[in-house]
Amino acid sequence: MTNTLYLPELREMLAEQNSAELHEFCIALHPAQTVEFMEGLTAAEAWQVLQHADPNTRAEIFHYFDPERQVEIIETQNRAAIGQLIADLAPDDRVDILNRVRPDVVRELLPLVPAEERRDIHRLSAYPEGTAGAVMTTSFARLSENLTVSQAIEAVRKQAESSETVYYLYVVDDDDHLRGLVSLRQLVLAKPDTVIRDLMERAVVAVEVDDDQEEVASTLSRYDFQAIPVVDHQRHLLGIVTYDDIIDVVREEATEDAQRIGGVAPLRAGYLETHLLTITWKRGLWLTILFFGAMLTARALGSYGQEIQANAWLVFFIPLVISTGGNSGSQSATLVITAMSAGDVSLADWTRVVRRELVTGLLLGGFLGMIGYVAATLVAPNWAAAAIIPMTVLLVVTCGTLLGSVLPMVFRHLGLDPAMMSNPFVAGIIDIVGILVYMETADLMLHAIGA
Amino acid sequence: MTNTLYLPELREMLAEQNSAELHEFCIALHPAQTVEFMEGLTAAEAWQVLQHADPNTRAEIFHYFDPERQVEIIETQNRAAIGQLIADLAPDDRVDILNRVRPDVVRELLPLVPAEERRDIHRLSAYPEGTAGAVMTTSFARLSENLTVSQAIEAVRKQAESSETVYYLYVVDDDDHLRGLVSLRQLVLAKPDTVIRDLMERAVVAVEVDDDQEEVASTLSRYDFQAIPVVDHQRHLLGIVTYDDIIDVVREEATEDAQRIGGVAPLRAGYLETHLLTITWKRGLWLTILFFGAMLTARALGSYGQEIQANAWLVFFIPLVISTGGNSGSQSATLVITAMSAGDVSLADWTRVVRRELVTGLLLGGFLGMIGYVAATLVAPNWAAAAIIPMTVLLVVTCGTLLGSVLPMVFRHLGLDPAMMSNPFVAGIIDIVGILVYMETADLMLHAIGA
Repeated sequence: MTNTLYLPELREMLAEQNSAELHEFCIALHPAQTVEFMEGLTAAEAWQVLQHADPNTRAEIFHYFDPERQVEIIETQNRAAIGQLIADLAPDDRVDILNRVRPDVVRELLPLVPAEERRDIHRLSAYPEGTAGAVMTTSFARLSENLTVSQAIEAVRKQAESSETVYYLYVVDDDDHLRGLVSLRQLVLAKPDTVIRDLMERAVVAVEVDDDQEEVASTLSRYDFQAIPVVDHQRHLLGIVTYDDIIDVVREEATEDAQRIGGVAPLRAGYLETHLLTITWKRGLWLTILFFGAMLTARALGSYGQEIQANAWLVFFIPLVISTGGNSGSQSATLVITAMSAGDVSLADWTRVVRRELVTGLLLGGFLGMIGYVAATLVAPNWAAAAIIPMTVLLVVTCGTLLGSVLPMVFRHLGLDPAMMSNPFVAGIIDIVGILVYMETADLMLHAIGA
Repeated sequence: MTNTLYLPELREMLAEQNSAELHEFCIALHPAQTVEFMEGLTAAEAWQVLQHADPNTRAEIFHYFDPERQVEIIETQNRAAIGQLIADLAPDDRVDILNRVRPDVVRELLPLVPAEERRDIHRLSAYPEGTAGAVMTTSFARLSENLTVSQAIEAVRKQAESSETVYYLYVVDDDDHLRGLVSLRQLVLAKPDTVIRDLMERAVVAVEVDDDQEEVASTLSRYDFQAIPVVDHQRHLLGIVTYDDIIDVVREEATEDAQRIGGVAPLRAGYLETHLLTITWKRGLWLTILFFGAMLTARALGSYGQEIQANAWLVFFIPLVISTGGNSGSQSATLVITAMSAGDVSLADWTRVVRRELVTGLLLGGFLGMIGYVAATLVAPNWAAAAIIPMTVLLVVTCGTLLGSVLPMVFRHLGLDPAMMSNPFVAGIIDIVGILVYMETADLMLHAIGA
């Protein structure tokens, strides 16, 4: 993504304080592209470039900087100028960014932000992270239902500058109750003297301010909306969530899911930005739990000490048995967790899921067992004893698919996040089950063949 | 999501053929809500309800049915009516849906679809799945750069019905080359006699028709676009991809990533819709590879037969050692894969990643090793021999974090999908490494203490 071709020119313009060309550079491209061209500059240089843009363009370009650069500029550059920048940013953006800035800097900056925006920051930052309130923006266009279409278009013109979208226009009464919705498309297509009341959609789908952001994402994408209004319990319109924030939410939730599946408590920030000790802690918690689980396998094996002494070849297959069980269990858990996240599988489907996993487990276990049998005949004392391996593989793989599919559903049933029933966790449980199944199968079969 | 409250009324209206009320039902709500109310009906009943809607509303509601229901209706209902429905669907939708329908039905239906739409279907279905061409729609509004703003608004009015969005308007020349972009917002704000040429954005960001859909998604969301134009190599405008399709792409790719991480080749359809044997095959492939890998652990253990016979207590810790290594490796792999997908980590960061994982591995391995030491003293012949366990855990966990982080980056470097370096695969490699490390450590330390 880095584009370094233009860097020398940029640096020269800065050295010469060539205001005209720097201004041109700031407005010539889409702000996201402008940012790509500046990637090679230091944060201080980039901020210097932005001084040659008008305040709105400056805020737009700043929006596309990556979070590290945003924080560095805010923490190091002139406080008064930063205070104005913060006022010019989109309401939801500035709260996100300030959350990453050092608290002492925020305390110094807030008095420099104009009063109206400062109040807005306080209001928005009161909503807990992960709720509709925390992702919504408060800059949107409002209309009264008494306007005609041509008056409404005039009203939209006036609000365009301060609105994140002018494509969905929310109709409110004097107390800011959400009454309806018209789209700019409708306004453009309608006769100029039509009254908004007669044009607007009344059954507006809205989310509540404390709804989970994942719910907001699924509602918005179910209806293919560009934006969705956020209301309080009395249906006062508080803000809107737009599709671009929802794309970010979907990405964020997917990453969190994948991390939970992989047995790491979700990181709040990017991998490289998260402190090493934080990551170690988030991983260590799970690893320690799993480690204690694995000590149970040591205990279980210890109790079969005599069988193992008498049949040393059984030891060679311990890793094979438990890793095969663990792998098939991880696969089932992944499939069921992703299917539940995608809405393909609900708890009501549990019998179908179990039946499918049972069949899959028997098929996979039977096939792998046959391969295992061939390997076992090479080291086992006789063909009958070697049959312990396929029998065990069949049982362990089937246990794996069943536990791997059932455990996430049990978690969901208990109201917990099924992705918590992560692959390593499932694998850890199956390890213990696998050892017990292996040793018991060996015990029974060795007795049966009189060894 | 199912709403069964209204079902008896709906069935009564159907029985009475109450056309007025059924028509009202079809238009009263957002089509997505209408579909929720119909969830309890059979596919045939739902289709009967739709007969009372005008063709456009019918197509809109049909769009929100789940894929299984769409396919059932298309395959079983009156061919001529279905042919018309297909013509009324959005161009990208109808290709997606027809891909799921039985080929013999498609062959019967296509002659019943009006010629223009039929050509469009052939054109769109020629693009390989997963490319920009396969997710784009061909219904969008075009403008000529010579129009004034008021003429342009008139032109938009005429095209609104047949355009998926009227908020981004693409400016093309007579040969359909993409020349510029204006938004409806700009049109509404501009003076009526401004010429489009002077208003339009010329540096339009576009994707090429054979670009990967993941790339399209990341471009659209980087720029916060509502839609992105799709062009061929000569920059002819072929179609547009809209944000709602991108939300679906992001979800789809996230699910595929999670499935690969979990060691399952991605399913094309939902979990319950995919044939059991397909799933078994997609899982079996990996499981079999891993199974052969695990047989190497059996071989490795076999070669240490004597040490094991002489120190039977070492056997008890085999599962603990390999599962701890596997778990720490899975965690590292998950973190690195998700960080690369999210764009937080690139290959250039590899030294930083390796340094971080080395430190994390030593910290985690050291801590778990101490717990392991306590457990080992209970069964080991003496305190010195018990030290084999913490030493092994430290080494194996560190190998795990290093391999888990490096392998996905190696895959990326080779141009392969890093998510292919799935958790089970990493775990499988670490199993073998773990056994070798364990046995070699034991060998060395037992010699050192003269046992």
